Formats: sequence, C-alpha cells, structure tokens
Amino acid sequence: MSEIMNIGVDLGGTTTKMALIDDSGKMIDKWAIATNTIDNGSHIADDISASVIKKMKQYNLDRSEVRGIGMGAPGFIDMDTGFVYKAVNIGWENYPLKEELEKLTGLPAIIENDANMAALGEMWLGAGQGAKNLICVTLGTGVGAGIICDGDILHGVSGMAGEIGHITVIPKDGSPCNCGKKGCLETVSSATGIRRLALEALDYNDSESILREIFEQKGDITAEDVFNCTAKGDPLSSAVAEKASYYLGYALGAISIVVNPEKIVIGGGVSHAGATLLDPLNKYFKRFSMPRVSGACTIDIARLGNDAGVIGGAWLSKTKIKQIHTA
Amino acid sequence: MSEIMNIGVDLGGTTTKMALIDDSGKMIDKWAIATNTIDNGSHIADDISASVIKKMKQYNLDRSEVRGIGMGAPGFIDMDTGFVYKAVNIGWENYPLKEELEKLTGLPAIIENDANMAALGEMWLGAGQGAKNLICVTLGTGVGAGIICDGDILHGVSGMAGEIGHITVIPKDGSPCNCGKKGCLETVSSATGIRRLALEALDYNDSESILREIFEQKGDITAEDVFNCTAKGDPLSSAVAEKASYYLGYALGAISIVVNPEKIVIGGGVSHAGATLLDPLNKYFKRFSMPRVSGACTIDIARLGNDAGVIGGAWLSKTKIKQIHTA
Repeated sequence: MSEIMNIGVDLGGTTTKMALIDDSGKMIDKWAIATNTIDNGSHIADDISASVIKKMKQYNLDRSEVRGIGMGAPGFIDMDTGFVYKAVNIGWENYPLKEELEKLTGLPAIIENDANMAALGEMWLGAGQGAKNLICVTLGTGVGAGIICDGDILHGVSGMAGEIGHITVIPKDGSPCNCGKKGCLETVSSATGIRRLALEALDYNDSESILREIFEQKGDITAEDVFNCTAKGDPLSSAVAEKASYYLGYALGAISIVVNPEKIVIGGGVSHAGATLLDPLNKYFKRFSMPRVSGACTIDIARLGNDAGVIGGAWLSKTKIKQIHTA
Repeated sequence: MSEIMNIGVDLGGTTTKMALIDDSGKMIDKWAIATNTIDNGSHIADDISASVIKKMKQYNLDRSEVRGIGMGAPGFIDMDTGFVYKAVNIGWENYPLKEELEKLTGLPAIIENDANMAALGEMWLGAGQGAKNLICVTLGTGVGAGIICDGDILHGVSGMAGEIGHITVIPKDGSPCNCGKKGCLETVSSATGIRRLALEALDYNDSESILREIFEQKGDITAEDVFNCTAKGDPLSSAVAEKASYYLGYALGAISIVVNPEKIVIGGGVSHAGATLLDPLNKYFKRFSMPRVSGACTIDIARLGNDAGVIGGAWLSKTKIKQIHTA
C-alpha cells in the first residue's frame, strides 16, 4: 500500500462506525464496534483505540503509514482542543477526547461534530463532490445541517452554526419544539414533525385516505408512510408532504441567501422519499430564494448513507493533519 | 513614516472616498473626489489613479512604502480577478477594474463589494473590533449585509452571500420588492420600507399623532421621523418601529442560527435611531434565535459611519497583499 491511510470514526449512541480510507478516497475496510456507554462512556476511547491498533496490525500498517484519526462525535465540541463539552447520549461531560485518542493510539486525532463530518464526507466523495460551498441537511428525528463555505465547515463563535432545525418558520401559533421555542423548522420538516402533521391531518379530516388505512392497521404512521402514500397519489398525504416541503423550502431559501451555496444535499431518513420530496422542495426553494442564488444551486439527495461520517473523518485526517508520524 | 501605508478607496455613484491608512490602522489622510460616470465610467480609474499618485507625492511616498490599494465598488464583482460584471450606477459592465488600477498606479490592487468592505472596516477598527465572526447590516434605501466568518468575508459560490434584504419575512401577502419577489426584509426594515409602513399606518388610522403633524407639515415623512416620534412616545410611530424591528429581529434570528456570529453591527441611516431601534430589535432577536446563539452575540450600532469603506479597503490591502513593491 503506497498511499497514506486515514482512519475515520463515527461515534453513535449504540454503534461506532470505523473505516480505513486512503488519501485518494479509496475505502480499504470498514467495520463497526458497539458503543459502550456504561461508566459515563469512560471505556469508549479505549475500545476505539484497541480496534484501530488491531486493524493496523491486520493490514501491517505502522504509524508512518497512517496520517491520523478523524472522529465525529455528537454534542458540543471545541474543534481546536478536541474537547467534548457535553454529549448526552454518550455520557461525556468535559471529556478530552482528542487527548485520550492520541495517547492511546500514538496517532494524531482531530474531532468534529458528527453532522459536520457527514457534510464533509458528502463533499469529498458524495453528492457534493466538486462543490466548495454546500449545505448538507439531515432530515431525521430532528433537522440538522453542516454548512461548508470555501471548503471548510462553518463553526461560528460557539460551534452552533448550522443548527437550522431551530430556525422559526411559523412565527405565530407554531407547535412547541424540544428546544423550548415554538414553530421551529424541526416541528414540521423532520420525520417526527411530518408524522405529527399527518396525525393532525387525519384527525381534522374525515376523508378516505390510504394513509388512514395504514394508521388503522398499524395504530401509527411514519414520515415514510406519508411519502409512500404521496407517491401513490393519496391527497391527504400529498397535502402533508407539501406542507413539510413548503417550510423546508422557505428555510433553505433564506439560508441560501445568507451563504450562497452551490449545492444543497439532503440526507437522513426522510431523504429516501427522493423526488416525492425534491419536486415540491425545489418549487418552494426557488420561490423563497433569489434567482441569482437558486440559479447557482442544485438540491440533491445524499449518496453516502451511513458511510458519510467515516468518510468525512478520513477527509479531516487527510486535509488537516499535516505532519505524519515518523516511527 | 516607518509603517507601511495602505490606500482605501470607496467608490460611490457621486463621490469616491479615499484614505491613506498605515498598517497599525492610523488614518494619515482622507479625501474625496467626484465620481465621473460619463462615457460609461471610463474615466473613473484614471481619476482615482491620478489622485492616488498625487497623494503619494504629497507625502513623499514611493511604491516600496505603499502596500497597495483596497477598493470597494457597488455591483457584482469577481474577487479573484477584480472584474466588475455589472455596476449599474457607475456604468460599468464587464470592467477589469483591478487590472486598470494596477496598470495606472503601479500598485497591487484588490477589489471587493462595497457592503463587504464596510463590514471589514467595522471589524478592524469599529463596532466589530476583536470579533472574527460578525454580521454588518446596512439599513439604508435597501437592506444589505457583509458576513464575516473566521475573519474573512463570506462570498458564496456566485458572490451573493449576505444579500439578506431579500430574505422573505412575510411569506403571504407581503408588499412587492424591487427584486420581483414579495415580502422581502427590505420591504419592511429599510428606510424606504419603514416610510411605507408609516404612510400605511397614517392612512388606516385616524388617531392623533405627532407623526401625522409632521406629515401634514412636510407632505411626507422619513424613517428618521418615525424613530424621532417613537422616542417622544408617539404610539402610532412606536407601532411602526416595533413592526420594522420585529421583522429585522426575525431575519437576524434565523441568520444567527446559520452563522453563529459574535457580533451584529447595524449601520446605515436607520441605525441613527440607536436604542429606539436596538431595544425592540434585541427583544425579537432573542425570541427567534436560540439561547446558545443569542447569548454569544451582541448587537451594536456601527461606529465608523462613512469611513467604514475606506478603512475596510485599507484592511484588505494590509492583510491580502503580501508582496510589497520593491522599486
């Protein structure tokens, strides 16, 4: 192996994904280990480091052949120090992640927020390839984003840049959000928000609907059901999908005027709706953006799925770790 | 003079402001020349260059003592090439401004959009001093902004980043904007927008008001009248000022979630309202931002007035022009 290697790590609440990726972007191996959150997550760095060292042995890699580790973690992170202020699902509070990883592996490490790392992955090898100004939106339980300007993540003064799920899109009488505000984008365009809008629509409305049939069968519905029924022409579901897309298009219209991106990449569970989401989204995005801004920007579905994080981690290692260990 | 000098130029439709500023930020001299827009602006670069050379002679400066020229121009600019695509008020279309200035003065030049240059000036020596993440909003005839992230202007893929006057704040039944859309921030929070809101309020409402007295005396009112009457406790004016601040706070709340700034600096004619504007603005900004974002950000009035542009130009020269001419 002549190319220098990078290790990407994507820490989740139950599983930690890892990958060995060379400087050219070729994925040599990917694997996962369980995330051990007992004892306030104090075993996690040990487990990851042991797994990294084992994998390096397997491939006969010494430290001069591995640039370093790029790792994404949920929660609030200081990029400069690699310090995790708080990661609720993991149990960390004021945890020196970078320092621990470096001590245990002997490799340089760089830490980033997990949503931002997925954005870097999509920029390097996914739907954002070639773009240096892009927004990667994740539509899952919540709505998050990694914003990349001139090839680098926008962090802002306290690492909060891109928390777009909490932009107010319904200023009056909006639904309560987990954050304490009302009418946040997350309340209408996340998987949870879309489910809520659909349940409300079923409640307010007596019309026949295949979505209602699913609800009566399963006792519940998901955002996926809403988009599936929309694709089948169900009017009630279409109205819900339209509403979710309207607010997302409204917010992305405003955001695009602020940062003027070349590409908006939509990921997360809701993005599996594909064209059923993109078609109305494009319509509202154009309405609320500006011609010179929307004309320079395309909206695409994310391509890397669950690999986006580890690929972004490898990109961080490749581009931010300059000095290679000389053993 | 031992410090290296920089020349800041701020091109306006009627006047071109210029200044000689040293690397420490000390303003040695400032002056202005008329902007000659006849013949599609083809004399402007000659006039500026002649004025620069004359000023250098006056101070006995040779080219080894002047780093270069940082110049702001209205319109759409390619920063890399210093090419002005279109500057309607000036008459330029596809004009190689950087090349012309460099040829005529023998000094390196760097060109930036004028709103962005004012933002850089406020960052260097004005209300944004010390902040590396800030937004400078200009509330004048329109609403514009220069957004600075990590110390550098955010341009976006086509130089449109920060055109925040065209963020939609009234999605339904908003007033028409010059841009062709409806309900843009500019229609309610610019000087023009505030005047329109006030005229509408006078029309819909028969109540006594000192604003109405001014209107009956002068036959017109300005945004300044609205804020003056608000400061005097006039209820009709207060309602208008509150509305303009509400929408500005709403937009800045969203923008702050996108870029997480340390400082928002408000400039332009409307900013002379001071606390009469800042008090309601802060209230709505906090409502529509997030605690971790608004808590890290203060809103201040711009300090440099008309000098912001030339100071920003000198900053561009100081920080972006590395190689000094060796005559």
